[in-house]
Amino acid sequence: MGWGAAVSLLRAGIQTAGCDVVEETLERFSEAGGRPAVTPAEAARDADVVFVFVVNAQQAQAVLFGGRGAVSAAPLGAVFVLCTTIPPAEAVRIAADLVAAGMAVIDAPVSGGAAKAGSGELTIIASGAAKAFDKAAPALEAVSTKVFRLGEAPGVGSKIKMINQLLAGVHIAAMAEAMVLATREGLDLQTVYDVICDSAGGSWMFENRGRQVVEGDYTPFSAVDIFVKDLGIVSQTAADADLPLSQAALALFTQASAQGLGREADAAVAKILADRAGVKLP
Amino acid sequence: MGWGAAVSLLRAGIQTAGCDVVEETLERFSEAGGRPAVTPAEAARDADVVFVFVVNAQQAQAVLFGGRGAVSAAPLGAVFVLCTTIPPAEAVRIAADLVAAGMAVIDAPVSGGAAKAGSGELTIIASGAAKAFDKAAPALEAVSTKVFRLGEAPGVGSKIKMINQLLAGVHIAAMAEAMVLATREGLDLQTVYDVICDSAGGSWMFENRGRQVVEGDYTPFSAVDIFVKDLGIVSQTAADADLPLSQAALALFTQASAQGLGREADAAVAKILADRAGVKLP
Repeated sequence: MGWGAAVSLLRAGIQTAGCDVVEETLERFSEAGGRPAVTPAEAARDADVVFVFVVNAQQAQAVLFGGRGAVSAAPLGAVFVLCTTIPPAEAVRIAADLVAAGMAVIDAPVSGGAAKAGSGELTIIASGAAKAFDKAAPALEAVSTKVFRLGEAPGVGSKIKMINQLLAGVHIAAMAEAMVLATREGLDLQTVYDVICDSAGGSWMFENRGRQVVEGDYTPFSAVDIFVKDLGIVSQTAADADLPLSQAALALFTQASAQGLGREADAAVAKILADRAGVKLP
Repeated sequence: MGWGAAVSLLRAGIQTAGCDVVEETLERFSEAGGRPAVTPAEAARDADVVFVFVVNAQQAQAVLFGGRGAVSAAPLGAVFVLCTTIPPAEAVRIAADLVAAGMAVIDAPVSGGAAKAGSGELTIIASGAAKAFDKAAPALEAVSTKVFRLGEAPGVGSKIKMINQLLAGVHIAAMAEAMVLATREGLDLQTVYDVICDSAGGSWMFENRGRQVVEGDYTPFSAVDIFVKDLGIVSQTAADADLPLSQAALALFTQASAQGLGREADAAVAKILADRAGVKLP
């Protein structure tokens, strides 16, 4: 997603530096017209806006505040756009540390995946100071078609992203149960898919991921391990609040990951349920 | 829903008899231009098409084959349109008994609720013989805007309705979890609603029932007890196939019913989760 966002920025005529741990990616980025940077600090030098696309809170902490982290080199007042899905409490803490270091922050988890990042069509669920939004506006516009502005408080963006991931994860697992039961009952999955997409049982995820199960194509637009992480954030944040469906979905994704499906498409949780039910999916 | 379908038939100029256990309903039906019938047999006399709108398989069995049941009086070749959500195995058995009695059958569970029935806008998920569909066509058209024709085999309609109810029930429970966690995190529920409806976490049920939670309005368009029944059908049919989300949702609806919420809107499962989490919904 970071790659996609970076090339969308270049396409919009915005001078862009990019840092990645894979050297080959930096070479490609140079060929695409970007400035390759070997460290986050090097990428953030002279930046007005710094996008952070990493996997989890630990990585975010490292690229921001670690050795050769971005904050060490960024000019005062640079806007950090935190695009990683991390626990809301971590988003709040990191934002406070950035502000203490003289930076501005937008808590800005995204949805849309690598493809939408590359076409500049991300959805950004964001909270932060108005001045930060103003300064980052051209960059945000280059990478997204929709920005939800949810007030000034850091954490709100991450909280609503967490709620979205709760629903998305449960809906994928529910789709998997539906497809497995339909298979067991001898139904034609394409027919089930068509009827459900047009009925009260429909969901964005059923429509999107159900197609993968019908076609037996588990190309990972988003992987099982993403939901191990994101439903883990739900579980960790919910603490003692009992959310049985989220827990059941997390258990399925965790089992799928443990069985070696972590890098397959998230819809591959259906394989776990199919095994348990003794049915064969397409 | 039976009332709604009956007045939709009248509005289409189709002579309609109606049977209900509530005498007042029969009086209203007479005033609306229908022919009131005190028994199913009386309603089915001379009928070309017989709609069955009851609550469960036991009631369907009774109104069809019990004393003064419809089958005893219906002419040979009458088309029975079975609109109740019942276990697919029951639909198959009842259809076989109807065929053995010289009747035609459409396995035709519906969705849309009483309101859509009254406006002639039901969705019908149907399987049955082509000749039965032909004969029932004007009546089906009067009560619905969409008929999914899913082949000849009875049971297919009921199976796909069951799959739809699995998803619908799980999605309602997931919506409830999302709203409870959002409340616990201090988020504005209207904002959450607006963002999710436009994101990958969206579902038909989130959009429809989430609004009820945001507004604190639990008017029962469809009640908790409907999902106790329909997820019970899923559980019974799935037998030894492990469907953990459906089971978790069924447990929530069952607990809500046990706590006296059975006749409230199905979205009232959110109250159970809110209690457990110690938060107060609107």
